[in-house]
Amino acid sequence: MSATASVDADRILDHIEALARCSERSDALTRVFLSPEARAAADLTMGWMREAGMSARMDAIGNVVGRYEGTTPGAPCLMLGSHLDTVRNAGRYDGMLGVVAAIDCVRALHAAGRRLPFAVEVVGFGDEEGVRFGATLLGSRAVAGTFDMAVMEKNDRDGISMRDALGRFGLDPQNIPAAARKRGDMLAYVELHIEQGPVLEAEGLPVGVVTAINGFTRLAVTACGFAGHAGTVPMRLRADALAGAAECVLAVERIARDGTESVGTVGRLEVAPGAINVIPGEARFTVDLRAPRDADRERAVVETNAAFAEIAARRGLSLAIETLQESPVAPCAMWLQDQIGAAVAAEGYRVRHLPSGAGHDGMAIVAIADIGMIFVRCEKGISHNPAEAITRADTEAGARVLLRFVENFRPQASAA
Amino acid sequence: MSATASVDADRILDHIEALARCSERSDALTRVFLSPEARAAADLTMGWMREAGMSARMDAIGNVVGRYEGTTPGAPCLMLGSHLDTVRNAGRYDGMLGVVAAIDCVRALHAAGRRLPFAVEVVGFGDEEGVRFGATLLGSRAVAGTFDMAVMEKNDRDGISMRDALGRFGLDPQNIPAAARKRGDMLAYVELHIEQGPVLEAEGLPVGVVTAINGFTRLAVTACGFAGHAGTVPMRLRADALAGAAECVLAVERIARDGTESVGTVGRLEVAPGAINVIPGEARFTVDLRAPRDADRERAVVETNAAFAEIAARRGLSLAIETLQESPVAPCAMWLQDQIGAAVAAEGYRVRHLPSGAGHDGMAIVAIADIGMIFVRCEKGISHNPAEAITRADTEAGARVLLRFVENFRPQASAA
Repeated sequence: MSATASVDADRILDHIEALARCSERSDALTRVFLSPEARAAADLTMGWMREAGMSARMDAIGNVVGRYEGTTPGAPCLMLGSHLDTVRNAGRYDGMLGVVAAIDCVRALHAAGRRLPFAVEVVGFGDEEGVRFGATLLGSRAVAGTFDMAVMEKNDRDGISMRDALGRFGLDPQNIPAAARKRGDMLAYVELHIEQGPVLEAEGLPVGVVTAINGFTRLAVTACGFAGHAGTVPMRLRADALAGAAECVLAVERIARDGTESVGTVGRLEVAPGAINVIPGEARFTVDLRAPRDADRERAVVETNAAFAEIAARRGLSLAIETLQESPVAPCAMWLQDQIGAAVAAEGYRVRHLPSGAGHDGMAIVAIADIGMIFVRCEKGISHNPAEAITRADTEAGARVLLRFVENFRPQASAA
Repeated sequence: MSATASVDADRILDHIEALARCSERSDALTRVFLSPEARAAADLTMGWMREAGMSARMDAIGNVVGRYEGTTPGAPCLMLGSHLDTVRNAGRYDGMLGVVAAIDCVRALHAAGRRLPFAVEVVGFGDEEGVRFGATLLGSRAVAGTFDMAVMEKNDRDGISMRDALGRFGLDPQNIPAAARKRGDMLAYVELHIEQGPVLEAEGLPVGVVTAINGFTRLAVTACGFAGHAGTVPMRLRADALAGAAECVLAVERIARDGTESVGTVGRLEVAPGAINVIPGEARFTVDLRAPRDADRERAVVETNAAFAEIAARRGLSLAIETLQESPVAPCAMWLQDQIGAAVAAEGYRVRHLPSGAGHDGMAIVAIADIGMIFVRCEKGISHNPAEAITRADTEAGARVLLRFVENFRPQASAA
């Protein structure tokens, strides 16, 4: 019998710091897809993978992939991981924590001399945020076999196409299909990630079990009324586009509150002509609706459209609503939620299930494997911001839950 | 007995067109204070004044002043007029109509050989809009003796101070006090102006009797909550600055509707950070409240502050409210409203009283004389816009009412 495996929170946080230094700028963490910084981060990560007892390689899209064989070489794998790219002026935990914590779990197993009845792979996706080419999940879509080759012609802000960027990075676009994995190769994909929201902090819990990556619908709305002199047009003769938009903002809030775990946000709102003494003639705003169940989101979209139409008709405004983006829910498999929940309970924490409001690589991987996610508490829910923070204790708690989950992982009968 | 005096709408509209050609740009009417275009407009106007039988001069602030003596030379005057400056990309009736219609009334009297028991003066104020130096009513304030000499140091957008601009225009800042008129010199000040609002059009009336130039209060409001990820922060844990601001917008609307002839407008609203997937952490907006009675406006301001405080407290937002500007009502004298109303009725129109939501030169002149105003219907209430329009028939109706008012004018006993 082998020794007990245990994670090393200090090592995890050291690696997080090392990755944070792989940045386009020294004063702010920015590391976009296929950049020199991404190369440096990949090299560091592959080094840690090898130190942890894994073979390590970069795939055709620039993901780094480490593999720790099980008792039978070549067996299907449990895939762990997250992404290594960042937004501009990012925090240091979004993505990276899931990669380095997974590597540390393998290191712990390896140090304890443990082999499992399945392989463990750790992936560091090269692009999840989509900052450089305006298309998200490029790394995980390649792995899922759903990569859209049309993206290859997209340019970054310096006019470099993704095709050229791949070439400069030493990769051949023609090989991208080879990055795709087959369904039978993977027993499951499980990602540890900071929550990026305030739920766990509000409940005093270090970790949570994700139920689904919410689907979302994004709308662009333009409400037109009549601009006029703020002093001379009586209230009853106005068609104030901002007053109508204000009602729409509150309708979005009400509809989201009425839903189950749904959220609705008006994040942008612009008023024209935008002078202190002019009644707004036009208001443009966006709506972002998300829910852990597609039916709930679809119902919220219908209710939103109906509420907007009623407001516009009552106020004599014209209304144009455009659907910008729509994405269905990526549900976390119940059997994985159960096994993650068991690991959380075994570590002594209350099992809190919660949906993920943010998007993650699992949205792509769900096309070829069941997915699960573990959330780790972060300070005030702040993310995509240098102020992103987690504690050492929560780092350890998250990594311990992940390790216990891996040690106790039982593939689903049909997937094994 | 002399002949019947009658106005000439075609001549009025020709003069309007001639003034519209005195513009900084050929493709948009812009004529700011002390500009070469203002000089051209003043010269044209003084020429028309002399043709109409008046003496004409430019005063120390750049106003043009025409005088038509009464039966007794040197008698106190009934002052008519409006302003000759424009906003940028202006309409051609705002201000100008009141000047050229008043000149045409004097021309009609002169042509008919009529002298009245009082003098008639027509003034074309050099600055009402305040476009160039960011301070309004400069012409009428000088006449009222309330000119603030501190404005002399204000710069236009090219860095030219008002002091220098006056000098280049051929005027001496030291003489400005000489532009002030004494209370006993003026029996009243009466201005004809386009309504700049939709009330007369909605009621099918060419003219209206103004009750007061509304007072106004302008606020700048900043609401701060917490920015956050639009997907990850549950509705109950949000402090959405825009949702709070939306409630404030609707509160302003409700409070103004509840008032008597009061109006309330949120004309500007800006959201930060302003991204589709980020909960707004900050919303900045303006409030413009006006009412024909100061007590009503003051009550609306109190109610607005209370509503905003309640909204902010309930939503966990911090709130900063700054008063930008405040101006009391300039009431139109009842005896002038009565005489204007009699002229309107005599011309065959229903007498419609209405407040002026926009500011006018009477706001300054009220310091030294009773004021009255006649409104003329304009198309769709549009103003400060090249689409500003009035009909020939309404031009004639307005000028006829003004002429009849002048012919029948009886000074108030105490003012005479």
